[in-house]
Amino acid sequence: MQTVSENRAFGGVQGVYTHASDACACDMTFGLFLPEEAKDAPVPVLFYLSGLTCTHENAMTKAGAQGWAAEQGVAVVFPDTSPRGAEVADDESYDLGQGAGFYVNATEMPWARHYRMWDYVAEELPALIGAHFAVDPERQAITGHSMGGHGALTLAMGLPGRYRSVSAFAPIAHPSAAEWGRKQLRAYLGEDETAWRPHDAALTMRDRGLDAPLLVDQGTADPHIDKLRPEALAEAMAACRVDGALRLRKGYDHSYFFVASFMEEHLRFHAEALYA
Amino acid sequence: MQTVSENRAFGGVQGVYTHASDACACDMTFGLFLPEEAKDAPVPVLFYLSGLTCTHENAMTKAGAQGWAAEQGVAVVFPDTSPRGAEVADDESYDLGQGAGFYVNATEMPWARHYRMWDYVAEELPALIGAHFAVDPERQAITGHSMGGHGALTLAMGLPGRYRSVSAFAPIAHPSAAEWGRKQLRAYLGEDETAWRPHDAALTMRDRGLDAPLLVDQGTADPHIDKLRPEALAEAMAACRVDGALRLRKGYDHSYFFVASFMEEHLRFHAEALYA
Repeated sequence: MQTVSENRAFGGVQGVYTHASDACACDMTFGLFLPEEAKDAPVPVLFYLSGLTCTHENAMTKAGAQGWAAEQGVAVVFPDTSPRGAEVADDESYDLGQGAGFYVNATEMPWARHYRMWDYVAEELPALIGAHFAVDPERQAITGHSMGGHGALTLAMGLPGRYRSVSAFAPIAHPSAAEWGRKQLRAYLGEDETAWRPHDAALTMRDRGLDAPLLVDQGTADPHIDKLRPEALAEAMAACRVDGALRLRKGYDHSYFFVASFMEEHLRFHAEALYA
Repeated sequence: MQTVSENRAFGGVQGVYTHASDACACDMTFGLFLPEEAKDAPVPVLFYLSGLTCTHENAMTKAGAQGWAAEQGVAVVFPDTSPRGAEVADDESYDLGQGAGFYVNATEMPWARHYRMWDYVAEELPALIGAHFAVDPERQAITGHSMGGHGALTLAMGLPGRYRSVSAFAPIAHPSAAEWGRKQLRAYLGEDETAWRPHDAALTMRDRGLDAPLLVDQGTADPHIDKLRPEALAEAMAACRVDGALRLRKGYDHSYFFVASFMEEHLRFHAEALYA
């Protein structure tokens, strides 16, 4: 693992690191904010999964998470959103290929070799961080924005017992039925839609439920709301009696201004579970 | 004036606007955060001046100011750092020309026609914002980062009575004697160094003092510290008995992570003066 940069921030350190990833079979870069408390003992860790077109950097610089993470004594990991590199399959569109990994293990060509973001986020990255930094792998939480909200929700449902709390900002909630989803799930997982179901939060919630508290924020002025389908998630949450809330935020859109506006509440929500 | 974008943020609105600038003789773009309170009555306003290479956008997305501005009920303006456009003189280096206006009214060719950032920030922009938005031009404060910290300090000293409070993050404090300064002041203002003096915070403080409270933060691990010369400002502040503090922040560098880490304290400092 190599250090790309380390900046002091809010009493802790915002680092950026690269490593050769086994899961993705390429070099991967991630951001990690460690609060001051990590100098003394391992701290709990929140994974923040980003949306389409983002790298590890966007949320790290725009979401305003570090200040609240410092206040709560929580580390935050900012993974990239896909494998990267000249040898990695890609597509001309912004919503498929590099920058658009959708947090699945691809089974189809040409994606299957590198596009294993599920394993990367679920297995490789937590192990790597646990080995190299003062974070406590027994206390993980997960959140994300848009495609990253989809990742947070589906990972949490697919890995019961893993995350102590789950949240999402404007998640792609029902990708099997939406423009953000059908194209990518078909490309990465093939024509058989039964393989998509564990990667559709609104559907898999009905199959598996969710064993951790959940907080979802969605702006009412989000221009992508028809591609996100929050109503399907709201219905599933109510039908499955999930311990959680989906809050509609009047006038907010899909930007990092929306994310930053509610970051304090998400960090407090996760800290309550992580320090319970 | 044209609206480029408006995003709901922290209960208020983060807008971006363009207008034909008289001072700079070109189109100029600025960001403006208006807190929720501006719906009811004009609010006080903080000018945030950015550093070398920045546009209106960098601090608007990375400095984390909006949340604290919302909490304090203060508007924040994010001006650009120079005139812009194909017809505007420029230089190949990052620290002269577009993106590097240094908040002066240039007198030398080829800069004199457009490079009038002093007048733009001091006169044109406050009048424009006062005419179009619910901000109170009687209650202005000013801050900035690096070259913008230089601008904040020199504008405040050059315009006594204008700003109720002044702050800076890692300002270029003594440009007459530093690599960030001599080159630009010579280019914009000519060989006669007496013309530079009102644009050197450490020097002009001895001539004019400062009639508003001052807060300066400087990271000890700032890789540019030799180009900033905080020691000259510290000496002048003490010698002039300025109502203020220069705080050295152990381990912090020159990045927006440094700026964001202390933004809460700067917003509280300004709000105290603006709402006194």
